[in-house]
Amino acid sequence: MSANPILDAVKARRSIRRFTSEPVADGEVLAMLEAGRWAPSGQNNQPWRFLVVRADDPRQEVLAGLTKYGAIVRAARVLVCVFLDKERCYSPAKDQQGAGACLQNMLLAAHSLGLGAVWLGEIINQEPRVTTALGLDPSRLELAAVLAVGRPGQKGASTREALADLMLEPFGGDHAG
Amino acid sequence: MSANPILDAVKARRSIRRFTSEPVADGEVLAMLEAGRWAPSGQNNQPWRFLVVRADDPRQEVLAGLTKYGAIVRAARVLVCVFLDKERCYSPAKDQQGAGACLQNMLLAAHSLGLGAVWLGEIINQEPRVTTALGLDPSRLELAAVLAVGRPGQKGASTREALADLMLEPFGGDHAG
Repeated sequence: MSANPILDAVKARRSIRRFTSEPVADGEVLAMLEAGRWAPSGQNNQPWRFLVVRADDPRQEVLAGLTKYGAIVRAARVLVCVFLDKERCYSPAKDQQGAGACLQNMLLAAHSLGLGAVWLGEIINQEPRVTTALGLDPSRLELAAVLAVGRPGQKGASTREALADLMLEPFGGDHAG
Repeated sequence: MSANPILDAVKARRSIRRFTSEPVADGEVLAMLEAGRWAPSGQNNQPWRFLVVRADDPRQEVLAGLTKYGAIVRAARVLVCVFLDKERCYSPAKDQQGAGACLQNMLLAAHSLGLGAVWLGEIINQEPRVTTALGLDPSRLELAAVLAVGRPGQKGASTREALADLMLEPFGGDHAG
């Protein structure tokens, strides 16, 4: 670990798919949403829109039935559904990238608060059914992803490719240019 | 400001488009790339690939000529070009979201290191010309964005919509569920 809390959080954050029954406070969810709100977006168009579904909301089961990860959806204390507002969108690539920045901000916020979370992407394969099932207008809104959130019930583990394998040419001499 | 360095960084980070002539060390660029490497991606497919172009590299001028933000490209000490590896991609939405998470990790890393950076998206409008001009294979790689990086030469300023205007229904009672 470095002495840099940002770099530490980025590297230590893991997808958490098991949760305890402990509650998540509104203030914690709001801190996540605030982090999402401050993401960058192309032309600062902020295409993201949020819907929070708690474990006591019947829509949790609706969502669970629309993904093969229903067990994770049911175990979560909070589901943060992130939509793209089609009236704000201007570029498929850039709007989805913005959503990704927004989601990552929220995942890092959750980690920083001691929460566990996982980014559920498979559920968007069932679009526009998910949006419709939530009572929202699919001509206006498109689901980008759902974050399942709770108190961590596992440590989480993951791996990444070596940086050298991601570089299109070698980098890392000793000059400072 | 809160006592949470992650939430603070997310909110304090701004796009920086003016840079001083001070150098950026390889170690700082590597810390950014490391942060990008640890982003989440759908099926952990890690579709991102990186190319670093420094101010002494003739490709900086090539890139500057392919965007209306050429002045920012020329002023940057370092350009971090992020590509999607088409052989790793599986979903346009999810792969672009992953790239967005990767880019945001790098922007937060830059901020945490005292660097300034801006996410340049307009340049991908000139794809596949940009990829070809860099000598890369556009059948394999697609430019997702370029980060212009340097020591901050301005403070930066931005705004965001109020959270209430982003919520698809009211949120924030006082229960903890």
